[in-house]
Amino acid sequence: MTKTLAIDCMGGDYGPSVIIPAALKALEIHSDITIYLVGHQEQVKKQVSQFNPQAFDIFGDRLRIQHASEVIAMDEKPSQAIRNKSDSSMRVSLQLVCDNVADACVSAGNTGALMALATILVGTLPGVERPAIVAELPNKKNTVTHMLDLGANIDASAEQLTSFAMMGHVMCQAVDGKDNPKVALLNIGEEQSKGRDSIKLAGDILSKQAEINYVGYVEANQIFNGDVDVIVCDGFTGNNVLKACEGITRFLYDQLKVEFTRNWRSKLIAAMVKPVLKSFQKRINPDQYNGASLLGLREIVIKSHGSADIKATLCAINKAISEIERQVPQEIQNKVSHLVLPVEH
Amino acid sequence: MTKTLAIDCMGGDYGPSVIIPAALKALEIHSDITIYLVGHQEQVKKQVSQFNPQAFDIFGDRLRIQHASEVIAMDEKPSQAIRNKSDSSMRVSLQLVCDNVADACVSAGNTGALMALATILVGTLPGVERPAIVAELPNKKNTVTHMLDLGANIDASAEQLTSFAMMGHVMCQAVDGKDNPKVALLNIGEEQSKGRDSIKLAGDILSKQAEINYVGYVEANQIFNGDVDVIVCDGFTGNNVLKACEGITRFLYDQLKVEFTRNWRSKLIAAMVKPVLKSFQKRINPDQYNGASLLGLREIVIKSHGSADIKATLCAINKAISEIERQVPQEIQNKVSHLVLPVEH
Repeated sequence: MTKTLAIDCMGGDYGPSVIIPAALKALEIHSDITIYLVGHQEQVKKQVSQFNPQAFDIFGDRLRIQHASEVIAMDEKPSQAIRNKSDSSMRVSLQLVCDNVADACVSAGNTGALMALATILVGTLPGVERPAIVAELPNKKNTVTHMLDLGANIDASAEQLTSFAMMGHVMCQAVDGKDNPKVALLNIGEEQSKGRDSIKLAGDILSKQAEINYVGYVEANQIFNGDVDVIVCDGFTGNNVLKACEGITRFLYDQLKVEFTRNWRSKLIAAMVKPVLKSFQKRINPDQYNGASLLGLREIVIKSHGSADIKATLCAINKAISEIERQVPQEIQNKVSHLVLPVEH
Repeated sequence: MTKTLAIDCMGGDYGPSVIIPAALKALEIHSDITIYLVGHQEQVKKQVSQFNPQAFDIFGDRLRIQHASEVIAMDEKPSQAIRNKSDSSMRVSLQLVCDNVADACVSAGNTGALMALATILVGTLPGVERPAIVAELPNKKNTVTHMLDLGANIDASAEQLTSFAMMGHVMCQAVDGKDNPKVALLNIGEEQSKGRDSIKLAGDILSKQAEINYVGYVEANQIFNGDVDVIVCDGFTGNNVLKACEGITRFLYDQLKVEFTRNWRSKLIAAMVKPVLKSFQKRINPDQYNGASLLGLREIVIKSHGSADIKATLCAINKAISEIERQVPQEIQNKVSHLVLPVEH
């Protein structure tokens, strides 16, 4: 089966100059995919021929351009972007998925606008009130931990946290093939009495669900332990936690470089240590985890990091391909509808 | 002037076995301090003589024991601890400060209980609704960044965030001697339109304050840049961010060790690289930043990390001494009362 991707070429900090080479690379690697490059036709064509003048000859019908005359800026207010820009590259990309022309959409654009437009155009699955952004984080046990929500929702009610937990549970089953993934709520203490009321209530609801292996609260210092498979929180907290981790990783790496340039002796050692550090950097490089799913939508929508480079963008595209193969939204629909909870309002 | 400290010996994961040797070390280093070791008399005496049988002879009247028959457990519900334990080591320590017997209190105990008891017993400064936990974080510019709240309050209204910003401003002036510290609000985007309503409103209030150098929003990946001096957020977010940073630092260090033991070549390099890594570890060791102030109280209360070891506990004690010298609560009172804002309800 051919997998078709709609790629928003105009989003992110670097736009087509990074996204188009990543898309061409994906076409080269995966012979069974077709890509719609969505964006301003002239700009897209120019960038394609700049990176590979033979691209259209090589990939033929697998490489297509879908014109979109507008671009949603990274700092544009989502409500304004939705109202005023009916032909944005982001909207056109999502529309290709809605129209069943594409199987998945990838965008590095304005997260708020992507979330709002996807919810309006693609729609959420039955039983899902709000989508959540989920990403895979590395851990000590060399597996991955799925964490959500990472910024789709500023706040989350107990019901929403519960629904995130169920979606994470299904995601982990589908992607990692784990039968009974461990699901936890992020909180500022492990004791049942701690934290926000919404979290305590979500914990109560989840602990009554036989289908979900709810293991209680985890604190943020345990995220990278690998003791649980799914960690659930509101989007404000998740986004801050993720960005703080990015920030301190860069800080620590810089500090390590400072140590290695402190004196002639450490500089000498640095020369020898280079391959080890390179391997370390490769291992901790957040790029390899780029590509966050907007979980709970009827179709596959992948958010690439705004500052993603070519390699990282390729990871987001690969993530989309893998979700098409695993039919993640269908899996969620099948299992979440089964799990739907009688929530009292 | 002699500085007197009340040290809760029973709190934290290790209790007297870590806190007492740290207190004895502090007495050795600082000739101008007096310490009340607060806890169960027999246990405290036993531990003191175990670490230094001559301690009472050496330090004389500078080393005192204040008996407290009860201990608040780390996982005890604060409301219960307050109701049921009228003679806890934490309460007795705080009482010594209230009674002007001690100038500061240091506790590694249950954060929620410490916060609640301190608010009840010590009280907040005029104009301060709720105290906030503030700590110093390292940054790229080799200065420190004061971040608050780190867990005293689960949520924070716009007015509370504003008051945290003002206290952080004064703290930074008092501790770092900076005339015009840069104060920012933590948010999930830098644009004015992003984030929670409470944050937007706090931003509006702060931007109208001529006395405060409010510079707008920062995202969590900028915490360690050193571009701002004070970062303000609610306690749930702050606590999660701080703990996530702890967790990933430990994770990265472990990954680095994995790289160095990968093969005989990397092991050989590891042997040479040891002093560099040691210096790195020392530089990034969170212990040196241990000791968070409960800012906004009438007296000095320092929270030491529950898992603090002897060195880290000593840092918290040093922090208390430095706050006594700088008369932080008085400074806040002087300046916050001057800055008090006409908040509309």
